[in-house]
Amino acid sequence: MVALASRAVQPAGTTMRAAELACDTRFTDLPDDAVELVRQCILDTIGVTIAGADEPVVRAVLADAREQGGRAEASILGHPDRLPLRAAALVNGTTGHALDYDDCNLNMNGHVSVVVLPAVMAVAERDRLSGPELIASFFAGYETACRVGQTVAPGHYDRGFHATGTIGAIAAAAGSARALKMDTEQTANAIAIAVTMAAGLKGLFGTMCKPFHAGRAAENGLYAALLSRRGMLAKPDAIECRQGFADALAPAFHPDMVDAAPARGLYIRHNLFKYHAACYGTHGAIECGRLMRDLVADPDGIVGMTLEVAVENDKTCNIQTPHVASEARFSLRHCVAMAMAGIDTGSAGAYGAPSLDHPLVARLRELIEVKLVPGLDIAESRLTAHTGDGGVHRVDFDATIPESDIALQRRRLVDKFDALVTPVTGAARAAAIRDAILALDTLGDVSELAHLCGRA
Amino acid sequence: MVALASRAVQPAGTTMRAAELACDTRFTDLPDDAVELVRQCILDTIGVTIAGADEPVVRAVLADAREQGGRAEASILGHPDRLPLRAAALVNGTTGHALDYDDCNLNMNGHVSVVVLPAVMAVAERDRLSGPELIASFFAGYETACRVGQTVAPGHYDRGFHATGTIGAIAAAAGSARALKMDTEQTANAIAIAVTMAAGLKGLFGTMCKPFHAGRAAENGLYAALLSRRGMLAKPDAIECRQGFADALAPAFHPDMVDAAPARGLYIRHNLFKYHAACYGTHGAIECGRLMRDLVADPDGIVGMTLEVAVENDKTCNIQTPHVASEARFSLRHCVAMAMAGIDTGSAGAYGAPSLDHPLVARLRELIEVKLVPGLDIAESRLTAHTGDGGVHRVDFDATIPESDIALQRRRLVDKFDALVTPVTGAARAAAIRDAILALDTLGDVSELAHLCGRA
Repeated sequence: MVALASRAVQPAGTTMRAAELACDTRFTDLPDDAVELVRQCILDTIGVTIAGADEPVVRAVLADAREQGGRAEASILGHPDRLPLRAAALVNGTTGHALDYDDCNLNMNGHVSVVVLPAVMAVAERDRLSGPELIASFFAGYETACRVGQTVAPGHYDRGFHATGTIGAIAAAAGSARALKMDTEQTANAIAIAVTMAAGLKGLFGTMCKPFHAGRAAENGLYAALLSRRGMLAKPDAIECRQGFADALAPAFHPDMVDAAPARGLYIRHNLFKYHAACYGTHGAIECGRLMRDLVADPDGIVGMTLEVAVENDKTCNIQTPHVASEARFSLRHCVAMAMAGIDTGSAGAYGAPSLDHPLVARLRELIEVKLVPGLDIAESRLTAHTGDGGVHRVDFDATIPESDIALQRRRLVDKFDALVTPVTGAARAAAIRDAILALDTLGDVSELAHLCGRA
Repeated sequence: MVALASRAVQPAGTTMRAAELACDTRFTDLPDDAVELVRQCILDTIGVTIAGADEPVVRAVLADAREQGGRAEASILGHPDRLPLRAAALVNGTTGHALDYDDCNLNMNGHVSVVVLPAVMAVAERDRLSGPELIASFFAGYETACRVGQTVAPGHYDRGFHATGTIGAIAAAAGSARALKMDTEQTANAIAIAVTMAAGLKGLFGTMCKPFHAGRAAENGLYAALLSRRGMLAKPDAIECRQGFADALAPAFHPDMVDAAPARGLYIRHNLFKYHAACYGTHGAIECGRLMRDLVADPDGIVGMTLEVAVENDKTCNIQTPHVASEARFSLRHCVAMAMAGIDTGSAGAYGAPSLDHPLVARLRELIEVKLVPGLDIAESRLTAHTGDGGVHRVDFDATIPESDIALQRRRLVDKFDALVTPVTGAARAAAIRDAILALDTLGDVSELAHLCGRA
C-alpha cells in the first residue's frame, strides 16, 4: 500500500465527507432492520443475477472477459468461471442488470445494489472477508450512492446521465475502499478516480448498454479503489471542484446534501424492490393495469385508454412500440398492456416473444395514450379506460413508497428468488444460496457463498 | 463475428456518417504527406511512451494490470510484459500521456495519437497486420476524433470534459473497428458503445488522472469495438440522439461538422507536435519565455511581468504555484519561468526537482501576473517584462500554427525521439525502432515493431 502525498485539503469538502462516512461504517453500529435490508438487497441482487446469466449482453461481455483471461480471483455468478477481480465486477454487474429486475432507490435515481454488490463481493471473495464485513462494505457503498446522488439530484439525471453508471461508480469505489480497509484519504482519492471514469447515458436505454452501464460502474469503482491503493493520485475535491463531477455533469449542486439525513434516518430504508422485470418507471403503471384487469371483465370492450405518468418518464420508459425485450421493459404502453392481458410481468421471459407476439397485448397497447403530468412522481400512475358502452373506469397506484412490513417483504423476495433461481440451479442449490445469504451476518468466509453462486 | 440485427437507421445520422468515413479509409487513397504525417505521429507517440514508461502513474496502472494477468496478446511499451489487448491499450495510452509530451490537435481539443495508436497497435500486433493497415486504421481514428470533436466544439471542452478521454474513446473505437475490419453498421455500433463509456474531467488536470484518461479512452474505444463485434447492440444514433453524447455532454451541437472539410483538406495536417513536455496551452508562453531570455540579459533586473493568454487557459494550465511535476506541466507561470531560467523545457525530467527546487524559477514565477485576454487562441501568448531601470520588453508567440515544412518537422521529431528513447533502450534499439516506423508503409507485420518497443 502506497501512502498518499500529504496535501492541503478543504476540511469539509463533499468528496472527503463522503469518504469519511463510508470509512466510518461498522457492522456493529448498524441497526437490525438495516442488516435485514442489506440481506434482502443481496438476496434479490444475487437472484436476478443468476437468472440473467444467459442474456445476450452477458454472453458478449463474458466471451470477451474469457478471451482476456487472467488470474482466477472471483466467481462469475451463474457460470463456472473465476476471473480477475475487475472482470468479475464487470460481468456480474452487467448480468445483475440484464433483466432490469434489480432493486433501485429514487434518492440515487438509479440502481444501487447491482453496482455495489459485484464490486464488494469480488473483494470479499478474494480476501475471504466475513459476512459482517461484506454487509458493512455493501452498506457503505449503498448510502454513498444516495448521499452523493442527492447532491446533484434531480438535474444530473435530467440532463441525460444514467446515475446507475455515474453515481454508481462512486458508490462502488466507496464500498470497495471499505472492503479493502482503506483510510479516509485513500477512499476520497478512490472516489476521485471513479469520478473521472464515471459514464453512462440515458440515450442508450432500451439497448444492451443499459445493463452494461451497471457492470462498468461496478468495475470502475473497484478499479478506482485498487488504483488508489497503489498510489495513483487524484485530488480530494473531485466531486465539488471546478470542472469536477458536479460542475460538468449537473446543472445545480447541493453540497450539503452529502450530510443530510433522509426521512427514516437511512437511505437503505427507501430501497425499492421490483416485482416486475421492467423499468421502475413502469411499476405504478403496471399495477394500474392489474387493477384495471380486475375492474373491466372484457378487455375487448375497451375503446380507448389514457395513462397519466410523470413528465420524467418520457425520457426513460416511453418507447411507444417495442420490437425486442430490452425495449419492452422500457415501454409504459407495452407493460400496461401485458398486465391487462394477464401476462405475468414478474416473469423475465415474458417481455420477449410471449408478449411481443401476443395479439391482445398489441391491441391494448395501441389503445393507450400516454399523458405526461407535472407533479407526479416517477412510479406514480393513473389509468383511465373508456368502454364502448360509455363506461369510464379509473385506477391509480403509487409505487414510490417502500414496503413498511419488512418481514412480508422478505417472504415476497424469497418467493421471487426461488422462482428465478430454482430453474437455473435446481432447488437444493437455490436453497443453499438463499439460506447462506439470509444468515450472512454469521458467515465466516464469503468465498463459500461466492463459489456456491458461481457453479454453473 | 455476430451479425447486428437489422434495424431502421437514419440515413445521414452523425454516428453513422462518422462510422462510414472511418470504414472507407484505404491506405492507397492517402496522399503522401498524410502518410508521412502518420509516420511522424507514430514515431513521436512511441518515443514519448517509451520515455514515460517509469512514471508513477504507469507503475500503478501496470502493477494492477500485471496482477489481473491474462493472455499475452500485445506488448507493453518500455516493459517486457505482454498483456491482453485491452490492458495493453490502457497501459500504453496512460504511458504515452504521462509526460504530457505527445501531440495534439486543436480541432479535437485534445490529444489524438495517444488514444488512437495504443488501440490500433494492440490489434495490429495480435492480428499481425501490415504497416499500411496500421497507418490506415490510425488515420481513420485520427480524422474521426476531429470530425466528431468539431460537432461539439467548443462547448464540450468548455463544460469541463477532457476531450482526450471522451472524444478519444470514440476515435479509438473507430480506429479499432477499422483495424478489426468491421463494416459500417458494426462500426457505428462500436462508436455508440464507446459514447456511453466516454469520460474524463478537466477538474483532474494536474493529477495522475490526466494521463489515465488517455489510457482509459484507448481501452474504452478498443473494448467498444470488441463488444460490437461480439454482438452487443447499442444504437446507431448515440452521438446525436436525445440524451445521447451531444445532448448530455455539450451545450450546442453542430451535426454537419462531421462532414465538413477542414482547411488543407485533412485534420492530420493540423496536428501539433510538442517540443516542451507540458500542456499545449503553455507552449506559446514558453516560446515567449525563451524570446524574453534572449532579450533581457540579466533576469535579476526584472521587477514584474504580465503574461497574456487565452481565457480558456485558466481552466487548463493556470496552476499558480505547482508542488509536483504533474502540476508544473499545467502551470503557465512555472513554465515561463523555467524557459527564462534557461532550463530545458524539452526535457521531461526538468518539471520535477530541477525546476521546482530552482530559486530563480521560483523568483521569476512569482513575478508573473497572468492576464486572461478574450480573443487569444489557447497557444497564443504575449509576455511583457518590466525592468528596474524602467525598461519595458514585449514578445509574443503563436503556437497554434502547424509547421509547414514537414521534412524539417521530421528532423526535429527524430532528434526528439533519439533524445528521449536512447537513454532507455540504448542507441541501437532506438535506431531500429525509429527506422521501422519511418518505413512503416513497407512493413509486412507490425508485431515485429511492437516486440521491439516492448523489450525492457
